[in-house]
Amino acid sequence: MRLYWSSTSPFVRKVTVSAHELGLSDKLETLPTRVAPNKPDRALLAYNPLGQLPTLVLDDETVLYDSLVIIEYLDQMAGGAKLIPSSPERRIEELRQHALCNGLLDLLVQWRIESTKDAPQIALINAFNLKTGMIWARLEATVEALSQRPFGLPSITLAIAAEYADFRFPALGWREKYPALSSWHQSIQSRPSLAATRFFDSSKPQ
Amino acid sequence: MRLYWSSTSPFVRKVTVSAHELGLSDKLETLPTRVAPNKPDRALLAYNPLGQLPTLVLDDETVLYDSLVIIEYLDQMAGGAKLIPSSPERRIEELRQHALCNGLLDLLVQWRIESTKDAPQIALINAFNLKTGMIWARLEATVEALSQRPFGLPSITLAIAAEYADFRFPALGWREKYPALSSWHQSIQSRPSLAATRFFDSSKPQ
Repeated sequence: MRLYWSSTSPFVRKVTVSAHELGLSDKLETLPTRVAPNKPDRALLAYNPLGQLPTLVLDDETVLYDSLVIIEYLDQMAGGAKLIPSSPERRIEELRQHALCNGLLDLLVQWRIESTKDAPQIALINAFNLKTGMIWARLEATVEALSQRPFGLPSITLAIAAEYADFRFPALGWREKYPALSSWHQSIQSRPSLAATRFFDSSKPQ
Repeated sequence: MRLYWSSTSPFVRKVTVSAHELGLSDKLETLPTRVAPNKPDRALLAYNPLGQLPTLVLDDETVLYDSLVIIEYLDQMAGGAKLIPSSPERRIEELRQHALCNGLLDLLVQWRIESTKDAPQIALINAFNLKTGMIWARLEATVEALSQRPFGLPSITLAIAAEYADFRFPALGWREKYPALSSWHQSIQSRPSLAATRFFDSSKPQ
């Protein structure tokens, strides 16, 4: 399987971490690709007209997106219900938790895009700051419950959001503000799936 | 159940159309709410720190988001597998189709937001135009297959994207460019679920 990939995309990383957790990472061939909202990649668009990373091309040329669909596919490949529960009630609860963690990730990515523009819109930056603050606070209050469940889709997404904040917003100081989240992250950060997939900026020397 | 709602939000409309299709619309109490990316609503944020529409508050005060999670919950409530198939292979295929139609919707919404700014970014507008054109073309080539499947999540999302284009981009001319999509839409537009939930701008006289 070919994965359209970037070392800086948190949504790609959800897929690579999930593949590691499921023992499937050696099945993924990664294709380094650069996209930005204002710079679509024509080769990628031919496979996925959304022009988004991640995009997974199966061996029979079936094309899968977005990250959640790809992860559900990989979970099925690995036998099912490893990262996303199958019982209806647990499923809704996990997908709701995922929506919260993924919303944090999405807002951080949009914030980063806005803040690197020539003239960032202040009202938008303020809204990103307010909403992500509300989400961090909600997660701080509930991370104890999260830590007692299997390391599934919400935990993967939250770990990536935390490391994306470290990568792109080093001055944010989330560890000082949210000590329970910080100690949760300390407890999971050396998992092989996270260690093998860290963010790096390929345009800078390592 | 209380649904944080707006007459102009296509993601809210995915939920109201789904509820109609499932025979559950009389269970939803709608709470008119205005949000924009740079104008969060504090009352909504207290329930959903993402500050997004739609947000569903159940009778036991459990809060559900995003639209896909809410629709999966309503589908379970109605007995399951009515709008989203349960067999793993069909499920992935339908969720992938949904991701394509939902991506069109999301790009149209972002395009609208960008185009109503004081100084829209031309490279971004060009990217929205390019990507939505690729998606419309892909859908035009595959709508025949879609029309032969039950009216589920991808069809609901595509119908809403088409009507959102009519509502917000009347000059786009998608019907002339994509005749197969246009005749598919003609064939489904009088479904009660769509007729009962049309977009309207509440700030203008009806």
